[in-house]
Amino acid sequence: MEVGPGLLSQVRVPERQVALIHPVDLPPALVRAAQAALSPAVTVEVPARDDCKTLEVFSGVLSRLAQANLPRDGAVVGLGGGAATDLAGFVAASYLRGVAFYTLPTTLLGMVDAAVGGKTGVNLPEGKNLVGAFWPPKAVWCDTDTLTTLRPAVFAEGAAEAFKHGLIADPSLLPRVLSPEFRPGGLGLEDTLADAIAVKAGVVARDLTEQGERAYLNFGHTLAHALEAVTDHAVTHGEAVGYGMHYAALLSRALGGADLTGQTLAFLRWQRPRPLPPLTFEGVWPYMARDKKADSDGVRFVLLHDLAQPYLARVPSAVLRREFDRWQATGSGQG
Amino acid sequence: MEVGPGLLSQVRVPERQVALIHPVDLPPALVRAAQAALSPAVTVEVPARDDCKTLEVFSGVLSRLAQANLPRDGAVVGLGGGAATDLAGFVAASYLRGVAFYTLPTTLLGMVDAAVGGKTGVNLPEGKNLVGAFWPPKAVWCDTDTLTTLRPAVFAEGAAEAFKHGLIADPSLLPRVLSPEFRPGGLGLEDTLADAIAVKAGVVARDLTEQGERAYLNFGHTLAHALEAVTDHAVTHGEAVGYGMHYAALLSRALGGADLTGQTLAFLRWQRPRPLPPLTFEGVWPYMARDKKADSDGVRFVLLHDLAQPYLARVPSAVLRREFDRWQATGSGQG
Repeated sequence: MEVGPGLLSQVRVPERQVALIHPVDLPPALVRAAQAALSPAVTVEVPARDDCKTLEVFSGVLSRLAQANLPRDGAVVGLGGGAATDLAGFVAASYLRGVAFYTLPTTLLGMVDAAVGGKTGVNLPEGKNLVGAFWPPKAVWCDTDTLTTLRPAVFAEGAAEAFKHGLIADPSLLPRVLSPEFRPGGLGLEDTLADAIAVKAGVVARDLTEQGERAYLNFGHTLAHALEAVTDHAVTHGEAVGYGMHYAALLSRALGGADLTGQTLAFLRWQRPRPLPPLTFEGVWPYMARDKKADSDGVRFVLLHDLAQPYLARVPSAVLRREFDRWQATGSGQG
Repeated sequence: MEVGPGLLSQVRVPERQVALIHPVDLPPALVRAAQAALSPAVTVEVPARDDCKTLEVFSGVLSRLAQANLPRDGAVVGLGGGAATDLAGFVAASYLRGVAFYTLPTTLLGMVDAAVGGKTGVNLPEGKNLVGAFWPPKAVWCDTDTLTTLRPAVFAEGAAEAFKHGLIADPSLLPRVLSPEFRPGGLGLEDTLADAIAVKAGVVARDLTEQGERAYLNFGHTLAHALEAVTDHAVTHGEAVGYGMHYAALLSRALGGADLTGQTLAFLRWQRPRPLPPLTFEGVWPYMARDKKADSDGVRFVLLHDLAQPYLARVPSAVLRREFDRWQATGSGQG
């Protein structure tokens, strides 16, 4: 894991043959820089954002690699946002039953969340991320220069995961994420980013396959996934996580934890997500219940006793409903 | 790993929800027995033989599991031949990034080769087994009663892998495979089968991801894969391996190893594979060169210094060509 400016044109991998996978809407200068550094045997362009996370695209990319005769000791490099690196990772995990994998994330979300962690995969018509593999990259290069190509809203998306890492593990991140310097080219951005990534890297190193503490990284995500699904992705993942963290803070307080709702509201004011359409608890609930984190014992929520004190709990549905109303009144943009 | 009669109706798994995957042409009595034992939440029928090993079928099966809400602590059970269990294993490896996997092989090939080893996957239009995962089953039950449902030619297919295990590791298997008792219901079949499986299980336990000795299991397979491809699967895998072992024995002798061609010819006489169409070295060679076992250093062959003494070598193309002619004259059914 390296974080810093100018990395894209300096990357090297030991494998002699490389397949480079990137989304079609990536700035051409970034693609050219990576191609110059890696001399890929094949470059595969995939659809933008989550449109690349389908089994159809997965199948097409695999055929391209086979046609290029990428050998078993070759490597797959994913360049782009979290969706493209999720797809590229599943391709790397599956091609010839697994080849080396590297990521060059170009979004804040991709750097803080998707690029570390080893989770790769695609969506099914039935739900997000239902297919994939645990396939950690051999290296991750976060070139902070690439962030200057992002629209502000896309940058703000990724900030949600950095803020989440502050809440569940490293409270020093909270004021730093909310500071005016937390922007592409901002002072100290590299350090803040490195600390935010370190939270996830540490958790993942201790629990790759989510037997235990890795579940804490899902703070805010149970409602977030439901909001994404129920709005048919009219809200982005980062926005949904912003909303979901506030709901999780309300639930945490309701079950006797410290009141962290001031923090989650401050983040929403900083992030300024687009407002949600009218929602009802009855409309959202089925999507929470079918979240991938559900098991035969029901849906678990990640809650906080206090800053950096996460725990798992099943929340009574009466509490879920009452706090949902409170969330709509205070933090959903609908109040 | 259990081998014996009547296992199908006795299997139990600790997971509370099970998806059962089987090929459409499996005798209904076998499916009913497994269903009665496992009470699967969902049973998915897939196309027969290699027709199920496509990403389209993979995609459809995953959707069925998602629709059935199979949870992360559920299990996938593959019932059938090697193709169905290869597909089922890749589904198990990929669904929710991996759930528990069990196999109930119902062919000799499936028992000796596909069910142990952890290799799962499907084909691409560009070649066989180019996509997949290493995902070992938690248990394998070889119900020898199921073998009585096989046509003799399908049983003889699987014998090739058992004979191969004799050549590369356990010569006591050779006379036992060629004996009249090596048939469904034959005397001592369970023991012979258990010993043949033990060869592979031992190799795989020491080298799951094929960094070293696991490659020896590919004895005979370089030509075999080429024959399957060049005939568009007019010969079955087991027949192709029978032919391929004789070619590998010829190459081994040509490079100074013991003469084991009498053994491989005896097996071909026992197996009676269907004759091959007219072939030329030029026609077959490209398919050998693109075998998955190829890497940047070229195509490796598994050869034998003597019985149970396998090694890896790159064979000069002049030798490949000369022995190909000799193979055609003696063991290809074309001489």
